[in-house]
Amino acid sequence: KFQGKYDGEDIIKMMVAAVKRAQDLGIKTIGVNAEDASRTSMEFLIKFSLAAKKAGAHQIRYCDTLGYETPFRIHFRMKDLTKAVDLPMELHCHNDLGMAVANSIMGAKGVLEEGQDALINTTVNSMGERAGNADLTSTTLALKHGAEIEELGLVDPRIDLSKAWKIANYASLAFGVPIPVNQPGVGDNAFAHESGIHADGALKDHKNYELYDYNELGRGETIMIETGRKITTGEYSGISAFMHSYNNFNIQFKNDEEARQILELVRYANVHKQRPLVKEEFIFIAEYPKIAKQILTMVPPDISIDRPHYEIAKKRLDKRTEEKKLNVVIRD
Amino acid sequence: KFQGKYDGEDIIKMMVAAVKRAQDLGIKTIGVNAEDASRTSMEFLIKFSLAAKKAGAHQIRYCDTLGYETPFRIHFRMKDLTKAVDLPMELHCHNDLGMAVANSIMGAKGVLEEGQDALINTTVNSMGERAGNADLTSTTLALKHGAEIEELGLVDPRIDLSKAWKIANYASLAFGVPIPVNQPGVGDNAFAHESGIHADGALKDHKNYELYDYNELGRGETIMIETGRKITTGEYSGISAFMHSYNNFNIQFKNDEEARQILELVRYANVHKQRPLVKEEFIFIAEYPKIAKQILTMVPPDISIDRPHYEIAKKRLDKRTEEKKLNVVIRD
Repeated sequence: KFQGKYDGEDIIKMMVAAVKRAQDLGIKTIGVNAEDASRTSMEFLIKFSLAAKKAGAHQIRYCDTLGYETPFRIHFRMKDLTKAVDLPMELHCHNDLGMAVANSIMGAKGVLEEGQDALINTTVNSMGERAGNADLTSTTLALKHGAEIEELGLVDPRIDLSKAWKIANYASLAFGVPIPVNQPGVGDNAFAHESGIHADGALKDHKNYELYDYNELGRGETIMIETGRKITTGEYSGISAFMHSYNNFNIQFKNDEEARQILELVRYANVHKQRPLVKEEFIFIAEYPKIAKQILTMVPPDISIDRPHYEIAKKRLDKRTEEKKLNVVIRD
Repeated sequence: KFQGKYDGEDIIKMMVAAVKRAQDLGIKTIGVNAEDASRTSMEFLIKFSLAAKKAGAHQIRYCDTLGYETPFRIHFRMKDLTKAVDLPMELHCHNDLGMAVANSIMGAKGVLEEGQDALINTTVNSMGERAGNADLTSTTLALKHGAEIEELGLVDPRIDLSKAWKIANYASLAFGVPIPVNQPGVGDNAFAHESGIHADGALKDHKNYELYDYNELGRGETIMIETGRKITTGEYSGISAFMHSYNNFNIQFKNDEEARQILELVRYANVHKQRPLVKEEFIFIAEYPKIAKQILTMVPPDISIDRPHYEIAKKRLDKRTEEKKLNVVIRD
């Protein structure tokens, strides 16, 4: 990958120096990232990880950078690696073959079987480079409901998915990326049944055709859609539309000054987001205005360069005028 | 599932009768579907499958109806089932835990290890009830490129994915369901790189950050988007717009009558699809007009009932008039 620029020993030396530097800075948990681990020989991977451990690293991240892994292979590789290195292992799986969730879980199983903690990297809605990473909700559902997985006790049974649907939808709104209709747990169709026998069975007892209940993911409330007048609050809102929104959320203000300051923050937030705010954002701004101000503060770095260069710009302009006269385009 | 209506013996009896009936009708390949197999005891599953085999079935379909399976479990169950029954096995996996692809492949591996053929059920774009089924493209990519999977020789190496991107997009258009941006192989972002080191690496050698090349999926052509005048051909098109479209596809007509008949078919197709046709549809209609006519023919069954019942309808109307007078709504 480094096109002959560095060899394995160089990589280990650089990694060890970085770990030592992190230690000097007083970092409490040092994780070492093994990029492209799935395409690396086990021999080098163990050597690299042992050097990291010796230098003071607390955990190793096994990256399936290209999404190349398969469930059996990653399981046994994680077993071997954990046995040899004896550190907690982090799994970072990509979804290029559609197997990120299964690989993460089967890899984690291997780590746990060797008596170490496993940490699974996930992303909300599986967002990530290319085909994305292991989806947070799917991975959690698989750990909770997968056959013979629940019995392993890989996750705390009290794990709470009741905000999963809301978070997935918020991330979708924030990214501007729709949730696939068939996304496990949170997609529009995740609990949709069509075929006669399935629909009938699901209505009689949902366990007939559903592995988990929509309530578990915080779904089930009816959504009210305003089909008449809509009042949105944004950068051009006045105090009246603004109070209308906050009244709907049962939030009152002590005095006009309080309302005015919150409105200013809401306007900034709207410019920042480039869309109407959602209920939770309104509430957050009203309840934590100082934190909101901090989040919304954006100051680009100082600019010391001097642009445009007027001489050059003028020359270009002259040239273009000339081109126009000649009716010819000369590329510069 | 049958709420005590049938027991295991009843199910086997009904299945055997169905297999015998299929044989009597001269059906050449009889597959028996084991619904909810993943939640069925191995003992009953083997008994059921052996009865099917004895009755003349040629293959068994193992259904993970609820998407409950995990890669290790399905692998070993498929091994046990194949060993006991010795028939080709079909895998039908749902994606409720995000593991349909991995389960299909690990299950198939088990079947093959016991010396029988494995058949994997997939759907285009993973469309199916709830969270859908194993995605066709992802499953094929995993069989071709998965670590230590290629070496198993599960698929013919000549398998051709060069139409995958086109088919996925056509299915998306036909279903009216967008392709998730991060869908393996065919999503908009499947070959998108952002982070500096990844983008740099991918540009230097795509094997650094891509497991397979976009060319393999038939991607890579530049798409021309008409930003000026658009001529679509639909149910209201005249012969001129129509000829314009066909000229673009290098298709000519012998005479006006030929053009007129094809135009009529195109109009019907547009009404049927409720959207402008794509290039391949235009070409198909022009090349195979008789097959196109057959596909577009839709004749609902005869209706022998007599509706509305005018007496009843009249009574309702009278009642409503009365309600109106009373300004009260009486529900009927």
